[in-house]
Amino acid sequence: MTYDVDKDAVRALLAAVRAEGRTALTAPEGKTLADAYGIAVPGEALARDVEEAVVFADRLGGKVVLKIVSPDVLHKTDAGGVVVGVEGAAEVRAAFRRIVESVRAYAPGARIDGVQVQQLLPPGQEVIVGAVTDPTFGKVVAFGLGGVLVEVLKDVTFRLAPVSADEAASMLDSIGAAEVLRGVRGAPPVDRWALAEQIRRVSRLVDDFPEIAEVDLNPVIATPDGAMAADIRVILSEGARKERRRYGREEILRSMRRLMEPRSVAVIGASNEQGKIGNSVMRNLVDGGFAGEIHPVNPRADDILGRKAYKSVTDVPGEVDVAVFAIPARFVASALEEVGRKGIPNAVLIPSGFAETGEQALQDEIVAIAERHGVRLLGPNIYGYYSTWQDLCATFCTPYDVKGPVALTSQSGGIGMAILGFARTTRTGVSAIVGLGNKSDIDEDDLLTWFAEDPRTECIAMHLEDLKDGRAFVEAARATVPKKPVVVLKAGRTSAGARAAGSHTGALAGDDAVYDDILRQAGVIRAPGLGEMLEFARALPVLPAPRGDNVVIITGAGGSGVLLSDAIVDNGLSLMEIPEDLDAAFRAFIPPFGAAGNPIDITGGEPPSTYEATIRLGMEDPRIHALVLGYWHTIVTPPMVFAELTARVVEEFRARGVEKPVVASLAGDVEVEEACAYLFERGVVAYPYTTEKPVAVLGAKYAWARAAGLLPGGGR
Amino acid sequence: MTYDVDKDAVRALLAAVRAEGRTALTAPEGKTLADAYGIAVPGEALARDVEEAVVFADRLGGKVVLKIVSPDVLHKTDAGGVVVGVEGAAEVRAAFRRIVESVRAYAPGARIDGVQVQQLLPPGQEVIVGAVTDPTFGKVVAFGLGGVLVEVLKDVTFRLAPVSADEAASMLDSIGAAEVLRGVRGAPPVDRWALAEQIRRVSRLVDDFPEIAEVDLNPVIATPDGAMAADIRVILSEGARKERRRYGREEILRSMRRLMEPRSVAVIGASNEQGKIGNSVMRNLVDGGFAGEIHPVNPRADDILGRKAYKSVTDVPGEVDVAVFAIPARFVASALEEVGRKGIPNAVLIPSGFAETGEQALQDEIVAIAERHGVRLLGPNIYGYYSTWQDLCATFCTPYDVKGPVALTSQSGGIGMAILGFARTTRTGVSAIVGLGNKSDIDEDDLLTWFAEDPRTECIAMHLEDLKDGRAFVEAARATVPKKPVVVLKAGRTSAGARAAGSHTGALAGDDAVYDDILRQAGVIRAPGLGEMLEFARALPVLPAPRGDNVVIITGAGGSGVLLSDAIVDNGLSLMEIPEDLDAAFRAFIPPFGAAGNPIDITGGEPPSTYEATIRLGMEDPRIHALVLGYWHTIVTPPMVFAELTARVVEEFRARGVEKPVVASLAGDVEVEEACAYLFERGVVAYPYTTEKPVAVLGAKYAWARAAGLLPGGGR
Repeated sequence: MTYDVDKDAVRALLAAVRAEGRTALTAPEGKTLADAYGIAVPGEALARDVEEAVVFADRLGGKVVLKIVSPDVLHKTDAGGVVVGVEGAAEVRAAFRRIVESVRAYAPGARIDGVQVQQLLPPGQEVIVGAVTDPTFGKVVAFGLGGVLVEVLKDVTFRLAPVSADEAASMLDSIGAAEVLRGVRGAPPVDRWALAEQIRRVSRLVDDFPEIAEVDLNPVIATPDGAMAADIRVILSEGARKERRRYGREEILRSMRRLMEPRSVAVIGASNEQGKIGNSVMRNLVDGGFAGEIHPVNPRADDILGRKAYKSVTDVPGEVDVAVFAIPARFVASALEEVGRKGIPNAVLIPSGFAETGEQALQDEIVAIAERHGVRLLGPNIYGYYSTWQDLCATFCTPYDVKGPVALTSQSGGIGMAILGFARTTRTGVSAIVGLGNKSDIDEDDLLTWFAEDPRTECIAMHLEDLKDGRAFVEAARATVPKKPVVVLKAGRTSAGARAAGSHTGALAGDDAVYDDILRQAGVIRAPGLGEMLEFARALPVLPAPRGDNVVIITGAGGSGVLLSDAIVDNGLSLMEIPEDLDAAFRAFIPPFGAAGNPIDITGGEPPSTYEATIRLGMEDPRIHALVLGYWHTIVTPPMVFAELTARVVEEFRARGVEKPVVASLAGDVEVEEACAYLFERGVVAYPYTTEKPVAVLGAKYAWARAAGLLPGGGR
Repeated sequence: MTYDVDKDAVRALLAAVRAEGRTALTAPEGKTLADAYGIAVPGEALARDVEEAVVFADRLGGKVVLKIVSPDVLHKTDAGGVVVGVEGAAEVRAAFRRIVESVRAYAPGARIDGVQVQQLLPPGQEVIVGAVTDPTFGKVVAFGLGGVLVEVLKDVTFRLAPVSADEAASMLDSIGAAEVLRGVRGAPPVDRWALAEQIRRVSRLVDDFPEIAEVDLNPVIATPDGAMAADIRVILSEGARKERRRYGREEILRSMRRLMEPRSVAVIGASNEQGKIGNSVMRNLVDGGFAGEIHPVNPRADDILGRKAYKSVTDVPGEVDVAVFAIPARFVASALEEVGRKGIPNAVLIPSGFAETGEQALQDEIVAIAERHGVRLLGPNIYGYYSTWQDLCATFCTPYDVKGPVALTSQSGGIGMAILGFARTTRTGVSAIVGLGNKSDIDEDDLLTWFAEDPRTECIAMHLEDLKDGRAFVEAARATVPKKPVVVLKAGRTSAGARAAGSHTGALAGDDAVYDDILRQAGVIRAPGLGEMLEFARALPVLPAPRGDNVVIITGAGGSGVLLSDAIVDNGLSLMEIPEDLDAAFRAFIPPFGAAGNPIDITGGEPPSTYEATIRLGMEDPRIHALVLGYWHTIVTPPMVFAELTARVVEEFRARGVEKPVVASLAGDVEVEEACAYLFERGVVAYPYTTEKPVAVLGAKYAWARAAGLLPGGGR
């Protein structure tokens, strides 16, 4: 479908409205704009005489409404000036005459400009199509069912504008009441493509004209044969949006590589004094085993921790990749000037005392200095960062040394500490932990761009409270997700509620509703809480990607099987319908009173061989794509025996090139904890005392595989 | 409001319908039934002549519909036999005549019985009121908004029938779209009491006549002035419901006391052979330190573990309170006969091989034996049970010895093992762990009745897959909840979906939807998963009950504060709006750039004294009812320092009689784990690496306090 839009008409119209100092368009202006963008609204024309009315009615087609147009008649209906639902020349003529006669009788002196002939809206399903300007994501298009009920239930979905036809059509399936549009109780389905086209054209309109702040088509009447907006409401923005400085992909990668894989680090404010941040940072760099150069900078010391100290960073010999700041906020600006002059590409600003304490001006000042010199800033107000594969602990926290595939970032220092503690206690393999703090410059999209390329990072988890630039984040996420999963904990979900707005769409666009839809569109896995973010980060890289949707539960405890099935449904997974031959194959291994089907209940008293045979079959059969194991602690099959046999079977198939995600819930006495740790280290995600967690992790892995296009019927 | 119902009319009508072998009532029969129970449906009457029509129309009042009544006219509208919306004698006369003339012209030979005069339904909000017969809970009444949207969104609520007027009215607030009934977009609210009255009368009808399986009033038109059902549909049940044997409260308590506090236990099938269940049970009883008598029963041994063994339980001297069965299923019946003859009130049936393996007949046989002798059965197919305050481990699992306030039950052995492992690793204080297995007799309501009375039990957590008798459970839960919290993990939530049904209400009554509403009505806390059940069980008794709704967050990490606020909303809690004087008082303790308000952000670099001063103020001020603490690990205030000061302040206030629930989220390195354990033992529910869990526990405590009527605006 090609667009057939008249931008000039809109441009002229908006200029005229602006010239009058208005921000809201009138109904006829809205109609002009709709026509220019091919947004279907009722056709209408002003007939000066009865034969014109006949011609217009014929041209509009179907039933029409006739309305008197007179500056002297305020209450058209009272005056007999409205006739609804006439069709055909004879009816139009009669109605035209009746209107004119009635109005003459009602108001003898009234001037009559003519009769408006307007298409009659057919009966159909009311929906709402709209667009708003989101503070984070910019132009966003919205779709939901119309009517008071949906307003109460807030059943609406959002996408970044502009949308493609497919994206627009996907919105019809994204609302809770999607079934209504497909036709329920024998009603015919609505014309999906006509509706999608309305959405697409609205999204194009706001994309083409950023000065349009909000558009409401409310309601749109959707029928089996089309979609037409009863009304269009357009509001212009008061001011222009502030543009943010953006770096190109190559620029980002160049400076991020030097940040994350530096050869030389300077510590500004390095100190010999225990308890000082500049001392902790120095010690962590040294004790962490960083193999590159470490240069302390301190005007009042000659050497620090046995290393030569420099009065100024400009005195440091050779190229420096990173300058870590461990000095009070008020000294940062001048030191940053020196960093800029030295040509150091990255400044890591640990100090607080900037925007977070109300010192916005101080922050603006350092940002200006950095931009002038092309220095990228991490922070301020952060704990620093870890790049574990470089043995780099550029932080005042304790060192971390378990190298692995997970990169974690946090906007808050407290959450950073929780990341560190959780990683340590679970021995999570980490590639990086990065504090983002005030995000005066470097933010999540810079880090995503880097981690996407970093071969040592296989999973990225980010805690964030806001996004400086939602579109840049979505772009970076979309580029990253096909390669590796991105987990996001978006804090502040519930605080804001719907923001004040001039349109229905605006009222429906609560901050979190927009975030939620758009993060999902970006293919990101949204963690509902801190615990889940940490657990997903730890577990996702352990599992191979699934190759299909068929999940099978094998359980020794019927009770676990039921709870695991609940979790399967809760996490959007589907239990495989076991074909007859496979069912027979499983039955061969389990007692006659056990239950094949799915869950496969091998029953509680079984020896290790029954677990092994059924797990082996689950790995073997190519129609099965993922296994969920429910272990029950018995004397016959103790926890470590189960763990050993399971790990062995999974490893055996992995060696043969057969990889499937296997997760396990272990119900038993405390020995199951050791068994879980053993399994986890060997590629089986296992948890004690819970049936929910292993399935939630599997659900997250599937969500990622779908977003990455690895599953049939996947994609965003 | 008194009821003014005509039971005789309904009885006669239903008998007549039954006599004809029908289960569905006709429309006129439905009208008769509605009239007998005062359920408002459109009034109607058959007018034989025009003057009768005028009288009837006047009597019905308002606008009416006239319809031809003729056995020879099938398509009334085509025949001109329907006129809608006439009012007043003149209009009625004209319409009557027009109808008769039209029909005569359309079908000259048609017999005309007269003209039906029917009240015209006013325009209004469509809702659905219905009743179904739930397999677990029996007669259940349903309410939801009408229309296709709600059918798709399944926005319906359920209550046990019959309901009081207040309960019926509460249903109007229990649906997602409740706001619609209160009037949105300037619409007037509907007449709540008229609508509630319709619900109440329907619930009364099905309660009075259990043979009525389903009732649908669909739609009911609710207006500001009343509520009237457009249609009533009634379906009778095919067969009678099987009644279950019920024990009286005193009977239950008498046998349960002997089960849970026995003085003498016999082990049938006790064995000296290691690895046998009869050996494990004996050893656990002995090693567990049970102070009462332990009598092994084994026909082929003289002594077992050094104790005299008896050939038969009838040979055991003196009274025996409990017989634990550790023999194969096929020997249970004859041994149970002996138990019955000996007058032992409780048989604990560990063996499997009954209903769960398809041997229903064998299970029915033992139930019959038990009923004949008045023996109560626990199981079969269980791990046994623990009564820790008696040092009683009547199970083949390992002993458990941490005495405390939590009673746990599980229907599944696997879940029982998870309970044991979790309790041991967290050192949860337990009063009892009971396996219920096949629940051939003793079930959750018996145990609830006992635990409610047991002074050592302060919290009850139950894993269940079904309820034998939902009403008995609700009754027991309602009696228990005012005294102590009841946590339920209902497995099989998502398996069933909506069951096949003959009515709309039936189709909306998915198993879980009914369970969910009715458990909530019973005041039970429903755990979403196994992990939560265990955590709630462990943590609820640790916290005192809140006295009001004002929750305050005090946090050292702004980031935790945001996540804790999210969790507050997610868990149905409310952040206190801090009054000005209190705000000023908090501000006095925190840095100028910290944020008072709520969360109170004391900022990260603060010494212990700041935590202490703010927590102290939170405990002190009587307007604050609960505290949520967000700790951030720093060198200035290390984890154990925070834990010690917090525990000390809480203890100090407890000693002064001031008790408030205090929960904490600790973000930090691994030392926070020890700090959490320290706090937990001292009455502060604390978790590391999560902001969700502590608030979820507080939410559960509040949910209980509300159900127990301890909070203003509480109650069920």
